Amino acid sequence: MPELRKDAIERRWVIIATERAMRPTDFAPAPPEPDTSAMCPFCEGRESATPPEIAAVRRPDTQRNAPGWQVRVVPNKFPALRIEGSTDVVTSGMFESMGGVGAHEVIIETPQHRTHAGVMSPGQLASVFWMYRERYQDLQRDPRFKYLLLFRNHGRPAGASLTHPHSQLIALPIVPKRATEELEGAQQHFAREGRCVYCDVLQQEQAERTRVVWENDEFVAFVPYAAWTPFEMCILPKRHEASFGALADSQLLPLGEVMQQALGRLYTCLQNPPYNYIVHSAPYEGRVGHYYHWHIEIMPRLSQVAGFEWGSGFYINTVPPEDAARYLRDVTAAFAPQEAPSR
Amino acid sequence: MPELRKDAIERRWVIIATERAMRPTDFAPAPPEPDTSAMCPFCEGRESATPPEIAAVRRPDTQRNAPGWQVRVVPNKFPALRIEGSTDVVTSGMFESMGGVGAHEVIIETPQHRTHAGVMSPGQLASVFWMYRERYQDLQRDPRFKYLLLFRNHGRPAGASLTHPHSQLIALPIVPKRATEELEGAQQHFAREGRCVYCDVLQQEQAERTRVVWENDEFVAFVPYAAWTPFEMCILPKRHEASFGALADSQLLPLGEVMQQALGRLYTCLQNPPYNYIVHSAPYEGRVGHYYHWHIEIMPRLSQVAGFEWGSGFYINTVPPEDAARYLRDVTAAFAPQEAPSR
Repeated sequence: MPELRKDAIERRWVIIATERAMRPTDFAPAPPEPDTSAMCPFCEGRESATPPEIAAVRRPDTQRNAPGWQVRVVPNKFPALRIEGSTDVVTSGMFESMGGVGAHEVIIETPQHRTHAGVMSPGQLASVFWMYRERYQDLQRDPRFKYLLLFRNHGRPAGASLTHPHSQLIALPIVPKRATEELEGAQQHFAREGRCVYCDVLQQEQAERTRVVWENDEFVAFVPYAAWTPFEMCILPKRHEASFGALADSQLLPLGEVMQQALGRLYTCLQNPPYNYIVHSAPYEGRVGHYYHWHIEIMPRLSQVAGFEWGSGFYINTVPPEDAARYLRDVTAAFAPQEAPSR
Repeated sequence: MPELRKDAIERRWVIIATERAMRPTDFAPAPPEPDTSAMCPFCEGRESATPPEIAAVRRPDTQRNAPGWQVRVVPNKFPALRIEGSTDVVTSGMFESMGGVGAHEVIIETPQHRTHAGVMSPGQLASVFWMYRERYQDLQRDPRFKYLLLFRNHGRPAGASLTHPHSQLIALPIVPKRATEELEGAQQHFAREGRCVYCDVLQQEQAERTRVVWENDEFVAFVPYAAWTPFEMCILPKRHEASFGALADSQLLPLGEVMQQALGRLYTCLQNPPYNYIVHSAPYEGRVGHYYHWHIEIMPRLSQVAGFEWGSGFYINTVPPEDAARYLRDVTAAFAPQEAPSR
C-alpha cells in the first residue's frame, strides 16, 4: 500500500510509492557531457575570459585575475538581475513590479575542470563554504537586498550550462516564496510547541536513525521523512542558528566533510547523477533567530515528471526515504581521504 | 533592465528577463518520440490491454470494453494510490502519514493514436471535458476524497510515458499544497477587496489586452502577468464559479474551442512542445464559492532549469508575457475548423 506523508515544516503531502519502489540501478545514468575543457572560461589560466574577479582564495604571491587561486568569484556574464537601480515597487492596477536589481555571481569551486564536489577533498569544500560565507556577509551590507540564494546546479539536466565545478549566488530585493513558506511553517511550530521545528526534526531523526545517512559532531545528513524526490537529502547543522552567515570557523571543515560524504555517496550510488543543492538561510532582515534554522537541501534530478508535480504541489516519490538512506549508507563516498584532517 | 513581477494570487516573484528575451525559434524542438502505435494499449481495438472500462462516450450499439468509443476512462494500470483503505492519520512523533488511498484514472481522449489535443476538433475536446465533469462529479460522492486533480502530461519531457492522447485524474484524501496556496491568496484578496481576485485579473487583462491570446463568450486564454515559465497560459472562465464540477452544458463547446485554440497555437508556435496542463478547482469540501474561481493552467516544458527554481520558489522567465502572447496571437491554431459549430 502506498503511503501519504506530510512534511513537518511546509504543508506538503507526498505519496511514497512503497509497492513499485525503485532501486538505484532502476534510474538511467545521465548521458555523458561533452568535453568542454578546451574552451572553459572557469579553468585556471583563462581568468580573462570571465568578468573581473570579485574575490578569491589565492596564494599571497599571486595577482587578481591571474592563476594561483583555489576558489574564485566572478560576476555572472549573463546576469538574471542587474546590480544598479532602485527597488521601488511600481503598481499597475492589481499588478506589482520592481526593477530587476540584484547581484548574480559565480563561485568557481576549483581550478580543475575534471572534478566534482562529490570527489573533492573536504578541505577544498571547506574553502568553498568559507567563500560562500564571505559573499553572504559582504552582500548583506547592501540595504536593497533582502535575501541571498546560494545554489549549485550539477549536470545539464539540473540546469548547469558549464561542467567546470561552480555554484551561484543571487542576492534578491525580495524574499522568495519557498523561504517565506519555510519561515511561516517554522514560526507556527514555534508558536505551538515553543521549540525550533528543525531541532525537533533533528532529535527525531537521530533517535530513529532509519533515515540518517552520515553525521559528524556538527552536521547530520539525512533523507527527509516526506522527501519529495528520490534520494533527496537535508544537511542540518546541529547548532541552532538561523543564518548561514553565522557559520563558525570551527564548522567549516565539518561542513566540507558532510557535503563530501553526501555528494560523494550520491555520486557513487547513482553514477554521478544531476542534482541541485540550495542553501536555505534566514532573510537578511527580520527577527527569526528563535524559530528558523539554516540547512542545505540536495535534490537529485532523476525523473522527468516534475512538471505536473511542480504545478500541483503534489509529489510522488518512488523511493521510500528509509530505502534511499540505506542505499546511501551502504556505499562509500568516492573521495579517499588522504588529505582530510579528520576529527 | 530585467523586471521583477509579483503574482497577484500566490505570493510569488518572478524575474522577467527582458534583455535576453528569447523568441519561439530559440527553443530547440523536442526530440521525436518513438512510434508506439503497434502495441499501444489505448488504441481502439486493444480495449483488453487496459483494466476494465469505468466510463466511456460510445455509440449506443457498442459494448463496454469493445471498439466504438470516442472517449474512454480506465483505471491507471500502475496507480499511485489505491482505491481501498481508510484515510485515518497516523502520527509518529512529529511526523504524520495516512494510507495512500485515492483513485487514479486515465482518460483516453480519442481512439486515434496519431493526434493531439492541439489538432483535435473543439467538439472532440468538448467530449473530453464532458467526461472530466462526469468523473469529477462521480468521485465527489466518495466522502474520503477531498480534492480532484485533473491533468495532462504531453510529451516525454513533461512526464508522458505513452504518446496516445490521454489525461489523468487523481482523487485525493488531502488538498494539495498549490491548491491551498491559491485558496489562501484568493481568500485574502476577498477579505481586502470584497471581490474575487480572478474576476479582477480577468477585468484587467481584458482592459489591457496585451497578454490576451484568444477569447470567446465564455472563456479567455491569456499569458499571466507574472508567468513563471515561457509561453505559460491560463484559461479562465468568464463566469465566476469555484468548482470545475459546476461547468454548464452550454460551456462545453466554448471550452473545447478555447483549449483547441490555446493548445493549437502552442503546437504551431513551438513545434509541438511538451507541456502539462492542470485543472485548478475548488476542494470538494469547504465554502469557497465567493472567492475562488476555477481555471486551467498550461505550462510548456521548454527549459531544463526548473530544479533550482522549483526548490527555491524563485523563477526566471526568459520570454516576457506580452511577447509570448503576441507570438501566440500571431500564429494560427493547427486545426482547420470544418466541423466546428461556431458561435
